[in-house]
Amino acid sequence: MENKEINIADEHSALLSLAGRIYDLDKRVYDEIGSNLGRVFDGDRDRMIDEIMNLFRDKKQSHELRSDLALISNMARSIKNKHIHKEVMTEYDQIIKAIDKADLQSDTIEVIDKYIAGLNTLVMKKRFLEGQHLIICISRSYGSGGDDIGFNVSDKLEIDYYDAEIFKTVLKRMEAEKDGVKDIKQMKAGAVKKAAKNPGLARDEKFSLREKISKINRYHGLPISDALFFNQSEILCDMARKQDFVVMGRCADVILTNNCIPHISIFITAPMEQRVRRIMEMNHVDKKTAIRQIKEVDRAHASYYRYYTGRRWGKAGNYDLSVNSASYGIKGSADFILSVLKANGIEKM
Amino acid sequence: MENKEINIADEHSALLSLAGRIYDLDKRVYDEIGSNLGRVFDGDRDRMIDEIMNLFRDKKQSHELRSDLALISNMARSIKNKHIHKEVMTEYDQIIKAIDKADLQSDTIEVIDKYIAGLNTLVMKKRFLEGQHLIICISRSYGSGGDDIGFNVSDKLEIDYYDAEIFKTVLKRMEAEKDGVKDIKQMKAGAVKKAAKNPGLARDEKFSLREKISKINRYHGLPISDALFFNQSEILCDMARKQDFVVMGRCADVILTNNCIPHISIFITAPMEQRVRRIMEMNHVDKKTAIRQIKEVDRAHASYYRYYTGRRWGKAGNYDLSVNSASYGIKGSADFILSVLKANGIEKM
Repeated sequence: MENKEINIADEHSALLSLAGRIYDLDKRVYDEIGSNLGRVFDGDRDRMIDEIMNLFRDKKQSHELRSDLALISNMARSIKNKHIHKEVMTEYDQIIKAIDKADLQSDTIEVIDKYIAGLNTLVMKKRFLEGQHLIICISRSYGSGGDDIGFNVSDKLEIDYYDAEIFKTVLKRMEAEKDGVKDIKQMKAGAVKKAAKNPGLARDEKFSLREKISKINRYHGLPISDALFFNQSEILCDMARKQDFVVMGRCADVILTNNCIPHISIFITAPMEQRVRRIMEMNHVDKKTAIRQIKEVDRAHASYYRYYTGRRWGKAGNYDLSVNSASYGIKGSADFILSVLKANGIEKM
Repeated sequence: MENKEINIADEHSALLSLAGRIYDLDKRVYDEIGSNLGRVFDGDRDRMIDEIMNLFRDKKQSHELRSDLALISNMARSIKNKHIHKEVMTEYDQIIKAIDKADLQSDTIEVIDKYIAGLNTLVMKKRFLEGQHLIICISRSYGSGGDDIGFNVSDKLEIDYYDAEIFKTVLKRMEAEKDGVKDIKQMKAGAVKKAAKNPGLARDEKFSLREKISKINRYHGLPISDALFFNQSEILCDMARKQDFVVMGRCADVILTNNCIPHISIFITAPMEQRVRRIMEMNHVDKKTAIRQIKEVDRAHASYYRYYTGRRWGKAGNYDLSVNSASYGIKGSADFILSVLKANGIEKM
């Protein structure tokens, strides 16, 4: 009991001394700068130390303490005399360290999601040690060039690239293997021909009722879209245990998180204006059509993501990193992502 | 005229030869892998080359061409024989280069905003050459720890840190200088005492009608909030011409863009769940109150940003980079940002 009281008294006197040092530093900087406006804690020493102690007490107010300190250091940095400048900045650094140590700042209240951070390849200490692979999940808004950037990243890292088309082909192959079909392209061509007869329907929906029923049966009673999702999820997790790759979309970030598989999740987007310009050129359409196409594709992505993950697509809080491709260009964005990987110890294997 | 025809004919035959190489590479990989399912262009050579030529013709379809190529290279990478593996991958790389050169991929249609990219310090070639400074604009959602991260970044780079509090103090000093007031803290204390008499009003609005009118007059007829914004903008641009700094919020990214001043813009956020947890701990409030506080502060930021910039706050397409602090933690996010800067040649001066 007595020990605890002594500790509290010790702590209080340590804080008092720290508050005094802050007051003195401010005064010293003020004396050096010479401006009659350049003082943060201008007043009676004891009263000002009381004020600083008040700022120490509540982390809710800690941003005010930080602003006051930043103001002092901003001014301190402008001291011309090199010797005094160094002395003052050294004292400032020591005060900041003491504040850190005394747990007086809100930055000791963490925002980290330990589970998410534990799967973030960029910050993992022991990555790739236990048979883990480099997996980069890229989501992107339509027209942002995300596909091109993702492909470029995989190409530079010399690792596999997977997108919806490739997943479809892989799944078709697996199906075909079951059914003994040998020529994928013939099968694909057949599907396209069939689709051409029902031009009003999207490609995946162009099946007769009989075909639809047989599809549902084949996928254990699941609607074909759900079956496709769960098949893809299974393939994705299988692959992630065996090899490095870049995967575009497919809710891969959430699937891997749910399966406790480390990865990097990146969202690539650009302002609407730039995406519209790009889609106009790429799809040879007018502005109105480009806007409609972008909204349609983005909405489909968002609702797919929401349906299978319950999360909001495209919110920066759902990815490790979000990149604005209009700030870098297509190759520039790929280079930027590669530079981020490299800076965090991830290079071509 | 004849020359042009020859060029077109040359180009066509170059593309035909490239299509042939893709067909042959696919066949070779297929022959090596041995699977009867491992072939992308399975069929008569001429018919398949026609198909590849069709993919060449339209950039809208270029993602399909890329998926096909990625599928071939994904399989090629799994070839066990090192000699053949190398040969096949070299041919693949050459094909990719030829496709790049022939402008067949959509990644040659740029998404870049040349003006924005030209002001993005991370990608600028000639930064800091003509008296330009390192300016990092950080926007953040409430509870994400963005303030702590920003302060940490400025502290590590040993550059100034500016937030709303500091701007207010600087502006008050400038005002006080005009009015001959010497003790900022006394002035501040006076304002707080006055505010305490009208607890129903926000601090900035606690002025009598007479005071309000005098404020409007002082700021050339502008409402005080607008005057504050324009004063801040002016100070910001002045500072940016003289020194390196980190600035929190203040629409600094857009102000600097509009004034053609290079900078780096970063948005820091985290999932709602983590922010709520943090605010509960920091402000000693229950979950419901924390959610309300976060929504209120974010909404105020968003409407301030919208009012002065016409842009949507917090959209990843409005910043060079967006970071999810829950993926890294507070110190981790600062370290991550520093690593990104370092990777792009920006270090402690």
